[in-house]
Amino acid sequence: MTTSNSTTPNTSSDKTTRAFASTVRERLPDAVDPASMAPFPASRKVYVTGSRPDIRVPMREISQTPTITMQGDEVANPPICVYDTSGPYTDPDVELDIRKGLAPLRRAWIDERNDTELLEGLSSAYGRERAGDPALTPLRFPNIGRPRRARSGANVTQMHYARQGVVTPEMEYVALRENQRRAAIKDDPELAKQHLGFGFGATIPAEITPEFVRDEIARGRAILPANINHPELEPMIIGRNFLVKINGNIGNSALTSSIAEEVEKMTWGIRWGADTIMDLSTGRNIHETREWIIRNSPVPIGTVPLYQALEKVNGKAEELTWEVFRDTVIEQAEQGVDYMTIHAGVRLHHIPLTADRTTGIVSRGGAIMAQWCLAHHQESFLYTHFRELCELMQAYDIAFSLGDGLRPGSINDANDEAQFAELETLGELTKIAWEYDVQVMIEGPGHVPMQMIHENMTKQLECCDEAPFYTLGPLVTDIAPGYDHITSGIGAAQIGWYGCAMLCYVTPKEHLGLPDKNDVKTGIITYRIAAHAADLAKGHPGAQRRDNALSKARFEFRWEDQFNLGLDPDTAREFHDETLPKPAAKVAHFCSMCGPKFCSMKLSQDVRERFGSKPQQDVDVGLQQQAERFQAQGSQLYQPE
Amino acid sequence: MTTSNSTTPNTSSDKTTRAFASTVRERLPDAVDPASMAPFPASRKVYVTGSRPDIRVPMREISQTPTITMQGDEVANPPICVYDTSGPYTDPDVELDIRKGLAPLRRAWIDERNDTELLEGLSSAYGRERAGDPALTPLRFPNIGRPRRARSGANVTQMHYARQGVVTPEMEYVALRENQRRAAIKDDPELAKQHLGFGFGATIPAEITPEFVRDEIARGRAILPANINHPELEPMIIGRNFLVKINGNIGNSALTSSIAEEVEKMTWGIRWGADTIMDLSTGRNIHETREWIIRNSPVPIGTVPLYQALEKVNGKAEELTWEVFRDTVIEQAEQGVDYMTIHAGVRLHHIPLTADRTTGIVSRGGAIMAQWCLAHHQESFLYTHFRELCELMQAYDIAFSLGDGLRPGSINDANDEAQFAELETLGELTKIAWEYDVQVMIEGPGHVPMQMIHENMTKQLECCDEAPFYTLGPLVTDIAPGYDHITSGIGAAQIGWYGCAMLCYVTPKEHLGLPDKNDVKTGIITYRIAAHAADLAKGHPGAQRRDNALSKARFEFRWEDQFNLGLDPDTAREFHDETLPKPAAKVAHFCSMCGPKFCSMKLSQDVRERFGSKPQQDVDVGLQQQAERFQAQGSQLYQPE
Repeated sequence: MTTSNSTTPNTSSDKTTRAFASTVRERLPDAVDPASMAPFPASRKVYVTGSRPDIRVPMREISQTPTITMQGDEVANPPICVYDTSGPYTDPDVELDIRKGLAPLRRAWIDERNDTELLEGLSSAYGRERAGDPALTPLRFPNIGRPRRARSGANVTQMHYARQGVVTPEMEYVALRENQRRAAIKDDPELAKQHLGFGFGATIPAEITPEFVRDEIARGRAILPANINHPELEPMIIGRNFLVKINGNIGNSALTSSIAEEVEKMTWGIRWGADTIMDLSTGRNIHETREWIIRNSPVPIGTVPLYQALEKVNGKAEELTWEVFRDTVIEQAEQGVDYMTIHAGVRLHHIPLTADRTTGIVSRGGAIMAQWCLAHHQESFLYTHFRELCELMQAYDIAFSLGDGLRPGSINDANDEAQFAELETLGELTKIAWEYDVQVMIEGPGHVPMQMIHENMTKQLECCDEAPFYTLGPLVTDIAPGYDHITSGIGAAQIGWYGCAMLCYVTPKEHLGLPDKNDVKTGIITYRIAAHAADLAKGHPGAQRRDNALSKARFEFRWEDQFNLGLDPDTAREFHDETLPKPAAKVAHFCSMCGPKFCSMKLSQDVRERFGSKPQQDVDVGLQQQAERFQAQGSQLYQPE
Repeated sequence: MTTSNSTTPNTSSDKTTRAFASTVRERLPDAVDPASMAPFPASRKVYVTGSRPDIRVPMREISQTPTITMQGDEVANPPICVYDTSGPYTDPDVELDIRKGLAPLRRAWIDERNDTELLEGLSSAYGRERAGDPALTPLRFPNIGRPRRARSGANVTQMHYARQGVVTPEMEYVALRENQRRAAIKDDPELAKQHLGFGFGATIPAEITPEFVRDEIARGRAILPANINHPELEPMIIGRNFLVKINGNIGNSALTSSIAEEVEKMTWGIRWGADTIMDLSTGRNIHETREWIIRNSPVPIGTVPLYQALEKVNGKAEELTWEVFRDTVIEQAEQGVDYMTIHAGVRLHHIPLTADRTTGIVSRGGAIMAQWCLAHHQESFLYTHFRELCELMQAYDIAFSLGDGLRPGSINDANDEAQFAELETLGELTKIAWEYDVQVMIEGPGHVPMQMIHENMTKQLECCDEAPFYTLGPLVTDIAPGYDHITSGIGAAQIGWYGCAMLCYVTPKEHLGLPDKNDVKTGIITYRIAAHAADLAKGHPGAQRRDNALSKARFEFRWEDQFNLGLDPDTAREFHDETLPKPAAKVAHFCSMCGPKFCSMKLSQDVRERFGSKPQQDVDVGLQQQAERFQAQGSQLYQPE
């Protein structure tokens, strides 16, 4: 067997060489990517203000054109409010400078709590080393502030405050955000229509109150990831009784990508709906790349510190130590990482359980820790130092994302002993973290055929006492490389329905290469579909509003509204224009699928109009009258139901 | 409200003008699209011969490269057999001529039954008119034979033979095809691994015998659509106890497309896995387009005769008559259409039930029939003449695809009274068709949120006594125009799991425009994923074989095998090459997602290799021995489960 070295283009382990190479080849962000700032059509940024003026929750309001009645009258259609993850980038009133970063909207809230202290400098040795290296000056984010940490003896986590009965501004912010002004549609019977959901035990109230947010966080059933060193964050919540969230992964590798590209992927990802972003960089200048990303990110940033720790020991898993890892956690904590994947559930005695798998251990973190455990014949340092880790997470309010290092990498390995043994360990660790009031979510698979997804979700809820589940897909088949956004979107929609709180996207490049911006967008849109389908299926209050508005627009041939209300107006418009490019076609009462004489929607409208004029109620009356008239005449054709 | 006329580019109803325009503008096929004939990588066409030499069932066999052990030894991997819908186009030994059509492989079987007669000429008035029009000569398929019909008093349907206890060659062909030589993998423990499925009442035997095929057809639980005028057909079966099938729609519209394009879409669609093709043309030269398609199609062709009938009355629904419709059915029957969508379930008293819908009647056929019923204040002629229709279908062995004219066009309209009232009528009609031994499947929605899909499937099985269900998606949300292959693929996978027999694809252009070849491919691959995910979830015997082979290849860094075993080798290879274009990278033991030092699969392999060498069994032993050694030493780290 050839070793990987023989095909490795460039793996110099000399740090100076690498840093030098970096300064030469690295591309830095010089401005916000204009594509991420372009206004959404017919949309405006609105803010809902909370109990105090600095709680201003952003939403996107999409305006609609009026319905034109048979008589030529216009009947207004209300604007539709949608959840907005895109941050200040889509607010034309905000002055943006990628080299300064976003405004620290949470700073006052953090200060007021008076439980943190500004440090003189970075606590991690590696952080200080990077900060002191003049060769890195050209790469470094130019506007780095002082790090913050919990005061000695203080517990600064959102879970701690929740358990004390305190509603933080972050919690109120989240409540307003989750409601999406849904009270405004109550008076619109068409928009408010919604099917009864089936929630598999979810208990979603009609209105999300700040108190409900607090209770769910206190209970551990939801997390609000918000590192005190990430004041730029617009708070959001992850839990089965809230809207299903999605994560987009970005990050360079040793072979490809630059800081500028990664920052662009982040702003591009949140434009299309990423609720959180994970920076999974494993290549050059990980530390500097992360700073650029966090300072410009309005969404929580997650990382896998193990990846960087491994870089620090030149990729040799067996040389990892608790000390290197701990220093990495502190380094990232003081940059503002909001949640960290920690593969503490991979225990030594689990490893033989993977031996007869089709695809062994496919989680990078899991494989690294397994290699370490076997090399040392010891229990993983992440497991043995878990309480120390809890103390670190607590000091910055970082949420655990307990990694599923033994997740299945193929259909055949789904729901096996190794996976479930680790899940039980993750349940134990959850309870330990909760002792420290540290927030926890649990990572999940992976590759799972449809009939086994529900067992997976149920087992997680049981083992981890309803701590939020955060799954990668799952992919429901292995046979479609190049289309794994779809194989996994099918599984993601289902597990979201069953109770999964956040869905980690999979792009078309999964298993094949690093996603570019197009792939990021495709992955995000696919997962927005999956998450929304899950919200509908659970019966999340108000979730059907956007479907109702879009379908009404479609039925009334309001083409522009149909595009604008969709998840991706640009693509919808482009597809329409490929067939019918003329502007007139956008107000045409037919679509290109059928042509002018032969459009089922047009025919159906004609049917309606025969029996009355719009609005809807009149049409109903018209048809009803017709039915009654026929019945009165003794005809049996219109039979009562 | 502006009428559609004001925006209609060209709707001349003068037939001569249209025919003339056609001859000038129409593009005709001059050769088979080379893209549809290109060999699949590492694949060869194989034929499994049945009980007689002219039963030769095509399959595609994908060869694999060997596994390289630690010692550098090669261990062969078996070829993988996959279901092949692509017909003779991917057989390099077959001489193809698009102007002659495919060889009539079923002709001898049909002749032998001695129950049909060759007619002197076409029975339909319209067919004769088109055949006699010299202006159409340049457009006409050059190799049209004489039509065939059941002899007076004879019943020629597959259902009739099945009920007589006769196994036709078509049935034996189908049994071999469904088995996919799965017996060959029984001796390969890795390939044969499969999870227990959950079939929601499906009863799939370990091996499909010709007798089982016969029984399922006799019972009405499966159909084998095979018009006696389509001898070019490679038989296939649609039923809940067989592999889940998919349909691809093609067809021109008044605004766009040509005969050549539609034939290309057909050959392109079956290349990627369409089990049947529906020709939904509504534009110019529908009759001639259909002939070109059928003569060159190895898969069943479905149509909606109502579309063409409406063209014949210049798009005025109220001018439709039973006579026009009947003539259209005969016209298409004698061309060889294998199944026809008939919207006979739209009854007059159903129509008012649609009045307060969000999107009224969106099925084209449903809207046309509703308009007709209301204009005449009469029950639909399709309903009142249904027994005559049965006689026509019987005479050519055409399967009914009973159309769901009242299917929901939006999430809000799902599973409503109108839809279910029609479904009950379709159940009544099914039983009538079965009196004539005419095969029946039932069309289904549409737009349905996830929590309501199962009710839909269950209701259909009840109402229609398990006649095969054939659904369009369903789309699980309305909010993603441009991505409705995905919104519907999610629903399709689920309903396929629950018991749906065939999934009608939806392309990214749904609601927006006519699909081009790219869209056809995307739709087909998406639906192959959905159908396969359903097969896996139902526990279809042997379904997991391809997943197992692909995942093993992936784990062993056999990149070429991973591409070749996938649904779309071209796209997988292309995505990989975008990041790592060098040929060496295809044998590299890492992937571009992580880079050379940092690949979880490589790490995991290293873990395995530490404890033994391949093959798998040795690795297991190695890890097991290690565990035992540690246990013997008194270590508690390797705990028994």
